[in-house]
Amino acid sequence: MPPDQRVVVVGATGAVGLEALRILADLGLHSSRVAALASPRSAGTSVPFGTGCIPVHNAETFDWLGTGLALLCADAHTARRLAPVALRVGATVVDNSSAFRLDPAVPLVVPEINGHLLEDHPRLVANPNCSTIILLVALEPLRRACGVSAISVATYQAVSGAGLAGLDALHAETLAAASGLPPARAPDSPFAEPCAFNVFSHDSPIGPDGLNGEERKMIDESRRIWDRPDLPVSPTCVRVPVARAHTQAITVQLSRDASEEQVRAALARAPGVRVLDDRAGNRFPTPLHATGADEVLVGRIRPDPATARDAAGRCRRWCLLASADQLRKGAALNAVQIGRALRLIPGIGGPGGPARGRTGLTMAVE
Amino acid sequence: MPPDQRVVVVGATGAVGLEALRILADLGLHSSRVAALASPRSAGTSVPFGTGCIPVHNAETFDWLGTGLALLCADAHTARRLAPVALRVGATVVDNSSAFRLDPAVPLVVPEINGHLLEDHPRLVANPNCSTIILLVALEPLRRACGVSAISVATYQAVSGAGLAGLDALHAETLAAASGLPPARAPDSPFAEPCAFNVFSHDSPIGPDGLNGEERKMIDESRRIWDRPDLPVSPTCVRVPVARAHTQAITVQLSRDASEEQVRAALARAPGVRVLDDRAGNRFPTPLHATGADEVLVGRIRPDPATARDAAGRCRRWCLLASADQLRKGAALNAVQIGRALRLIPGIGGPGGPARGRTGLTMAVE
Repeated sequence: MPPDQRVVVVGATGAVGLEALRILADLGLHSSRVAALASPRSAGTSVPFGTGCIPVHNAETFDWLGTGLALLCADAHTARRLAPVALRVGATVVDNSSAFRLDPAVPLVVPEINGHLLEDHPRLVANPNCSTIILLVALEPLRRACGVSAISVATYQAVSGAGLAGLDALHAETLAAASGLPPARAPDSPFAEPCAFNVFSHDSPIGPDGLNGEERKMIDESRRIWDRPDLPVSPTCVRVPVARAHTQAITVQLSRDASEEQVRAALARAPGVRVLDDRAGNRFPTPLHATGADEVLVGRIRPDPATARDAAGRCRRWCLLASADQLRKGAALNAVQIGRALRLIPGIGGPGGPARGRTGLTMAVE
Repeated sequence: MPPDQRVVVVGATGAVGLEALRILADLGLHSSRVAALASPRSAGTSVPFGTGCIPVHNAETFDWLGTGLALLCADAHTARRLAPVALRVGATVVDNSSAFRLDPAVPLVVPEINGHLLEDHPRLVANPNCSTIILLVALEPLRRACGVSAISVATYQAVSGAGLAGLDALHAETLAAASGLPPARAPDSPFAEPCAFNVFSHDSPIGPDGLNGEERKMIDESRRIWDRPDLPVSPTCVRVPVARAHTQAITVQLSRDASEEQVRAALARAPGVRVLDDRAGNRFPTPLHATGADEVLVGRIRPDPATARDAAGRCRRWCLLASADQLRKGAALNAVQIGRALRLIPGIGGPGGPARGRTGLTMAVE
């Protein structure tokens, strides 16, 4: 891309947009090369970028000329409206919403899994749902080693998955409880139930099949990313009073028997995965360990006790516990990784460039 | 039993003991008919009973004569030491610890499931682990209707499962976070990880098979209560920042195909179960709904999307979400129900007696 083009972040005042800006600043992108866009309501304010701030522009009146990459961190409705605008000026669009995820013409990409889809330089790329990304990054090494024939997963999802309003509700309800009031839903909460000191079925609408929207996304998107239209996926999505990072209790059925050594070795060398599995110290993935990290943490690695093992201890079903920062790898980081693999983040080189460490980007897209 | 005998609650200052006293008072037991025992450290204090208080006696020096029923709400070590003392004076013992749960000579009882074992008037009865009780009460109606061939479950367990120390840790860590401090483990916490705004693998020790103690209990006790030594049970036990009541995401494989109508009908008429399944309002079992309730709440009733359905929509695998107060039905209430079925709670009659309503006892033991 021409070196004078910008990265535009739409939804810059939201939880995912703020995280995208943080990652871009950490990567060394100069503030002159980034533009923050939001709804007219937020226009004229500013958002943090690196050690300073940048202005928030009105997404409705913004001049898109000179945009190389648009990271859409808004809702599906906004994405459907603004993606064509960005595409028209020649920008490439990576969309975090559900708008294009099941569109056969739009690749749905997790760089560690199907990054090869970016080799054709698609102009519009969809970023999967956070729970889908976390699940598949944790399981991809096992799929490559042994094949995956079925997945069952129960989630422990952070309130920030519902945006800053979810965080505000957790904060307000916690303060009320700390002052001695009985648990109650905050008036402005995006949830139907109190979220502090409570656990509840995911707040997305329930379909006629009894699945909520989050569970439906995990099924449909997993099948699409792995190109396995009939893959059995059985999710239960639940929110927990955690600010940030989603946890998942996963049972995976492999296509072939594997030993514990093989499972551990596959996970240990996988890009985007960090094994945290200290049985003696009872230290395993938690949302607090995962917050701010780039990798999906994986632990509690064990054979499913309900499955048969052969004489050598090999078996087909394995249990795992995974935690990952759903605003980073589950959303903003995955989108930035896509932009980087497409060589559309200016000033910091392509994969293998200088930025490494906290963002772990080079590993993920190599 | 002679009408002048007492009910003795051992571990009366602990979370389960306090709840047992609350249930006994709610049932109308007179304070002269109950004795609260605890370790020498707590002797001389008092505990709430009904609208007043009763003294706490030293369990080491207590005169057990005149004890009809001993409810042991202490650890396994204490149970092994004091159960013989109570049995020697002719008392019947219901033990809440793990001491006798796998002893073939001691019945392990959930009244709704295998209450017939109480017909022989055993002198020592074991109360199952809280997670086991909740799981099996939720599934017993499906077992009776269709048989159960396998269970997979992920838990969302309250910190009070680790006793009052768990509650204290959640309280202290929440207050610290509310005052702006970063999340950190309270110094006296019984947990290895911070519990406020976090989720972590259950704090019981991990065995060589990779299962923690809670998961092992769920497997062994479920098999024993249902008399199914080979039943496949696959649990993942996790703690969440909830004060009270455990939640479970359950997938059950039935022995025969069932329609959604059959599954719902079986659950709707089951003793000890209350269906809470409002798809339109997104209202399902939560620990806050379950706190203080006698029943196991069950909802999110749906066919496992990963399973095949026949032309009539029948299938073999079903998903449920259950929540129940682990200090009531998961511990103290189940123990009191056992004592009541044995007609050892004086002054309030047997099953079908006057006490009903909040404790729901009559329903559960009829």
